[in-house]
Amino acid sequence: MNNYKIKPSILPGFMELLPIEQRKFNDMVEKITKVYEENGCLPIDTPIIEKAEVLLAKSAGETEKQVYAFQKGSNNLALRFDLTVPFARYTSQYFNELTFPFKRYQIGKVYRGERNQRGRYREFYQCDVDIIGKDKLSVKNDALVINLASKAFQSIGLKNYKFQISNRKILSALLKSLNIENPADVMILIDKYDKIGKLSFEEELNKLVNEEQANMINKVISINGSKNKVLEKLNSLSIQDEKFIMGLNELKEVITTLEILGVDDSEYIINLKIIRGLDYYTGTVFETLLTNNEQYGSICSGGRYDNLSENYTTNILPGVGISIGLTRLFFVLKEIGFIENYKLPSKVEYLIIPIGDTLKYCGQVYTRLSQLKKSVEIYFEDDKLKKKLNYADKMGIPNVILLGEDEEINKTINIKNMDTGNQEIIDLEDII
Amino acid sequence: MNNYKIKPSILPGFMELLPIEQRKFNDMVEKITKVYEENGCLPIDTPIIEKAEVLLAKSAGETEKQVYAFQKGSNNLALRFDLTVPFARYTSQYFNELTFPFKRYQIGKVYRGERNQRGRYREFYQCDVDIIGKDKLSVKNDALVINLASKAFQSIGLKNYKFQISNRKILSALLKSLNIENPADVMILIDKYDKIGKLSFEEELNKLVNEEQANMINKVISINGSKNKVLEKLNSLSIQDEKFIMGLNELKEVITTLEILGVDDSEYIINLKIIRGLDYYTGTVFETLLTNNEQYGSICSGGRYDNLSENYTTNILPGVGISIGLTRLFFVLKEIGFIENYKLPSKVEYLIIPIGDTLKYCGQVYTRLSQLKKSVEIYFEDDKLKKKLNYADKMGIPNVILLGEDEEINKTINIKNMDTGNQEIIDLEDII
Repeated sequence: MNNYKIKPSILPGFMELLPIEQRKFNDMVEKITKVYEENGCLPIDTPIIEKAEVLLAKSAGETEKQVYAFQKGSNNLALRFDLTVPFARYTSQYFNELTFPFKRYQIGKVYRGERNQRGRYREFYQCDVDIIGKDKLSVKNDALVINLASKAFQSIGLKNYKFQISNRKILSALLKSLNIENPADVMILIDKYDKIGKLSFEEELNKLVNEEQANMINKVISINGSKNKVLEKLNSLSIQDEKFIMGLNELKEVITTLEILGVDDSEYIINLKIIRGLDYYTGTVFETLLTNNEQYGSICSGGRYDNLSENYTTNILPGVGISIGLTRLFFVLKEIGFIENYKLPSKVEYLIIPIGDTLKYCGQVYTRLSQLKKSVEIYFEDDKLKKKLNYADKMGIPNVILLGEDEEINKTINIKNMDTGNQEIIDLEDII
Repeated sequence: MNNYKIKPSILPGFMELLPIEQRKFNDMVEKITKVYEENGCLPIDTPIIEKAEVLLAKSAGETEKQVYAFQKGSNNLALRFDLTVPFARYTSQYFNELTFPFKRYQIGKVYRGERNQRGRYREFYQCDVDIIGKDKLSVKNDALVINLASKAFQSIGLKNYKFQISNRKILSALLKSLNIENPADVMILIDKYDKIGKLSFEEELNKLVNEEQANMINKVISINGSKNKVLEKLNSLSIQDEKFIMGLNELKEVITTLEILGVDDSEYIINLKIIRGLDYYTGTVFETLLTNNEQYGSICSGGRYDNLSENYTTNILPGVGISIGLTRLFFVLKEIGFIENYKLPSKVEYLIIPIGDTLKYCGQVYTRLSQLKKSVEIYFEDDKLKKKLNYADKMGIPNVILLGEDEEINKTINIKNMDTGNQEIIDLEDII
């Protein structure tokens, strides 16, 4: 052993796949991309490194600690920790050159130095769609982004997901109408409900509010059932607060638009406990759980914000966005056996194997197949036939073409189907 | 003006595109990916951040200065500066789980803190293919990777490129046979030939070698003409050095294989001045120039190496690779007007525009078109008709469907072709 060898390894918290799984991952990216594009979203690709002052314009305490920040020369740099902040910067930077409503998608890696634990990644893909209006943007778009996520999941064959939809205005207006002193603390607590459970929640809530307030909060957040039932119950609370009514109307419009867009009732429920932290969301918020695998948490989240780019411009840019955390989703889908069953055929249809000195003829067959738009490889190595066939097998190439002197003389091909084992000699031109 | 606004801007040396150009860039990535995959290359995706000791295992002086390196906690990290080093690490790390010959492609961003100048980027895409053998790998693969680059260029409609092919063994054996003391210096000088020009080159060469040596070097590197003529002239030098003969034979085999694979003679020449620095290349080397735009330098380079992963493993892994520097290429293609003429149709075929309160019917048409696998958008904003049509125009959506009360009642659609201006009312089911 040479002791100058460096152990080949990567940092903890980074996902790296073998080619067979990488193909599946990339196939998902491709399919999600197709959904986004065919629904009118345009791509952007922002740098992974940006000026720290730009990325951290809205200093978010917890996030900032996780940011990969460093110096190069005299510049303070940071790696992007999401795709939303760069998008806010992008939209204000190129404002005059964009067409609104601006539907953009971006699929790329982001970086967060999270505590190292299984299934949590420090480098991970986000697949984002945001729709931004100039001054105004219809609430129907909130339903549209959910529709896009739904189509994205369907495109990869995922079925057991359920969007959990709420509107932040409802709860925050409720808390205001209850004269609660520390509404932010209560919102944070509700956000944690599913993590900590009913008992701990109620215990903590009683520390923050009085009994009457707690009863009302518990009553509202535990409203459940069919969407119509939930909307009815919210109506029947008869809270005469302008913001509450606005939130309720927005929620109704989202639900109506989901119906119009053909999103199946089974794909979503109203869940008033959804908050999405204290971030920039101001209206619709949603998360997405895998049915029967809720313990993995949300695989796709997003919501409505009143003003995307307030740190960079005085233009008012309301919008709504979704993000599929694809690296995390892929991990979860591995855990639940979905990836193993995600079958992809080889992209190569034919492997040409020269037997003896027939390379020239192999070239003719290769060229002919290429002209016919067939995907084809030639096995170049001077190996035993068994090893050559083994390569086709390992790579999942369905057809092997064996070309010896007889084939060269007769202008035929000896073609073997790797699945059935059937082998036949045919004229080259009969391959089509 | 609010003076708390932060100016939205990115760092110098980073390419960022407007959506219309981003679509073109992504389309190229997609097409190159397709070529790589249909020729049997498998994808990998390595982290952008790696351990500094791993990425810098082979400390390359000039490169190291350009590396983005930083600390996070107690870890020394670096951003990858190419895709070859991570691939070397990957191949040795997962050696036992890979099938050889291992054809891998990787398309991703790499980072180099180069001096800031127009058309040079600090973050840029590389589109790499490498083919790696276990212990041995046929020289025919050197031709194959050139074939793949050729197909990649053709897939994006690029025609005026010319591969410049050489074999490092030829020159290095020549220098050895001439008993030159400082062959590395001479190699570096030859590498610079095209940049500094004939006169400066000869002047510098005379400082390094004697007249007789210089004459021989000049004679060899100025050999040009058709590939057969070049090979003939190299033969006729009658240099009886084993390495020279090996290099010449390898070069011949590459040329023969290019012919077999159907690469047109017009796409490549032998150019003995190609060296590719003092890097890891040991045999075939090549660069690619744009005909009539040679001043932009090489847009695709690569070569053969004897042992990819020597820093990480005792396994012997010979290979050959190419890399298309896509960000740089895109810049050049913009400069020469290619991008402007690179037309892409909209991915959306239909824009549904509600006239009045017809959203429900719009939903029916949307669902029907979606079932028919048509790509379709609904315009949700409450804008004037002119603005709605302007959106379709700006986005290049070819068909607009106007749905008013009449259409809803009659179950018809009012469809307008945006190119011709033709407008007609038809039954929904007649759209196909």
